[in-house]
Amino acid sequence: MHGLLNMASEFDLISRYFSPPAPNGFVGVGDDCAVLPLTPDKQWVTSTDLLIQDQHFAAGADPWKLGHKALAVNVSDLAAMGATPQACLLGLALPSIDEAWVQAFRDGFLHYAHTTGCALIGGDTTRSAAGIHISVTVLGLVNAGRALRRSAAQLSDDVWLTGQLGAAHLAWQLSTGRWAAHRASLSAHWADIQAALHTPLPPWQLAPALAQWAHAAIDISDGLAQDLGHILTNSACGASVYVDALPAHPALAGLPVEIKHEALLSGGEVYQLCFTAPPAHRARINALGEQYQTRITRVGEITAADGLRILDGSGQPVHVPRGGFDHFAEPQP
Amino acid sequence: MHGLLNMASEFDLISRYFSPPAPNGFVGVGDDCAVLPLTPDKQWVTSTDLLIQDQHFAAGADPWKLGHKALAVNVSDLAAMGATPQACLLGLALPSIDEAWVQAFRDGFLHYAHTTGCALIGGDTTRSAAGIHISVTVLGLVNAGRALRRSAAQLSDDVWLTGQLGAAHLAWQLSTGRWAAHRASLSAHWADIQAALHTPLPPWQLAPALAQWAHAAIDISDGLAQDLGHILTNSACGASVYVDALPAHPALAGLPVEIKHEALLSGGEVYQLCFTAPPAHRARINALGEQYQTRITRVGEITAADGLRILDGSGQPVHVPRGGFDHFAEPQP
Repeated sequence: MHGLLNMASEFDLISRYFSPPAPNGFVGVGDDCAVLPLTPDKQWVTSTDLLIQDQHFAAGADPWKLGHKALAVNVSDLAAMGATPQACLLGLALPSIDEAWVQAFRDGFLHYAHTTGCALIGGDTTRSAAGIHISVTVLGLVNAGRALRRSAAQLSDDVWLTGQLGAAHLAWQLSTGRWAAHRASLSAHWADIQAALHTPLPPWQLAPALAQWAHAAIDISDGLAQDLGHILTNSACGASVYVDALPAHPALAGLPVEIKHEALLSGGEVYQLCFTAPPAHRARINALGEQYQTRITRVGEITAADGLRILDGSGQPVHVPRGGFDHFAEPQP
Repeated sequence: MHGLLNMASEFDLISRYFSPPAPNGFVGVGDDCAVLPLTPDKQWVTSTDLLIQDQHFAAGADPWKLGHKALAVNVSDLAAMGATPQACLLGLALPSIDEAWVQAFRDGFLHYAHTTGCALIGGDTTRSAAGIHISVTVLGLVNAGRALRRSAAQLSDDVWLTGQLGAAHLAWQLSTGRWAAHRASLSAHWADIQAALHTPLPPWQLAPALAQWAHAAIDISDGLAQDLGHILTNSACGASVYVDALPAHPALAGLPVEIKHEALLSGGEVYQLCFTAPPAHRARINALGEQYQTRITRVGEITAADGLRILDGSGQPVHVPRGGFDHFAEPQP
């Protein structure tokens, strides 16, 4: 459910129109995934995501990377629930059948499916004169009652992030021509920031282990401020986050503070997790980071006071530059 | 998986590119739905279908009916597996948020979801400048090992149909201006044939009961000849079907035989079932038709000889006018 409940316009649309109560045993609209009963021990977790040409990717996008990303953004939703990937369905609407394109897309998709153990079990293909539309539904497993929920943050929890922030936003903004003056100075990081945008690697191996110790989680596909905001709203609490503690991608190092703050706080397309966990589990969580060779950083704490406070090194509030990605905004390049 | 494996072009595309072996306990690409393990007694069945503007419906299509149909074509896939609808996920890409449109679409979708017990549990919304794209994934339940498979037809099985044939094809062809000379004479049937095309009612209540007695099943969304052909190919057998036995919609009564045969044999968008069952179960199957107030008609039998033979009243072969719906063909009006 990446893209669902993420922005005012979408939130209004969905919450006003598509939120009937979920039946017994189901968790319905409003989290990264829905949860379905399986056995007394296990639950299915499922989510669906759309990728639309000219909105989420350009017509000329590399098909191998697009195949990878189409599945990865869905696996990220499973990770945000602490679920282990199991199976996926692919809907693919194409203007025509370009065999080389389809083969490369397939290779990228199935390579990532194989890596994550997420078997392609079904799908639908059709013609779409207006461009490429991709729809992926994923199914994963969680231990019953252990799915990480947006609504489960508790007072005094630590706030943690996996991975690094800002690289995908930098790649995206540079592709629009924005921040062109800084382009040359980023040449050493070019491949790295492109990879962050086009071939994201969500922490799917770590996530089920985290589910044992964490309370709430979400992926940062729409930017830290916005997505952590969903945890706070759904958990009826606030948070303090320390901007100097945020795991900034090295490419941000030499850039002006305005760019840094925008990329760190509002930059979307980060298929990493923001999660909360009790301070008593700090050592366990750090150990999991080492075990799964995933960077995990403690960046703040859950507070009783409403809202998200971003604080600089002297305790002063940092302005959040602008909202994250709006799926009903103008297309990305 | 309506639309998957249905036409040469699609079949080639999918079978060549997207058919890795399914893991243990899963039935993978190649049937109406995929099957996932649940308990020793029950299995999940899942399927995904795309509906694309200008390909499957016109930009000005009635949004209530479109909401109904988007879910109904997926429920039809569940029925073709003998599964009971449980839950669905909706992906909705729109050029803009037209509240009246969204509300009507929602009402049509949720009305049918409520009717069939298929709870909306998740989804994704996004902007799509190029037009409306709808993606629905459904989940249903079957008794373990009882899912109706395309590959399960057996020699001497009867071939049965639910519902009536030809009305949706008539509505579609008339909307293109074809057969205009017959338009006036169809005025008495107009509402009925439009309903067949735009608000199909698959036999979802009957299907799980059928699963106890039938062998193979498929929905006729791509036309009887083509879809029964999939059963024959997958079951490595042939069939004889008697054209005079086919349950023709009354609107076909006064029309030329060429139109009748095309509508009966090649007309798609029929969200009804073609299934096979042993002759020993005839009385039980007819009783199920009465119990569920669903028309069920025996139209032929499974044979050892390969291929589908359509026979007229004097036992002469009937030519199948042309193939069914090709999802990579030019858009429907």
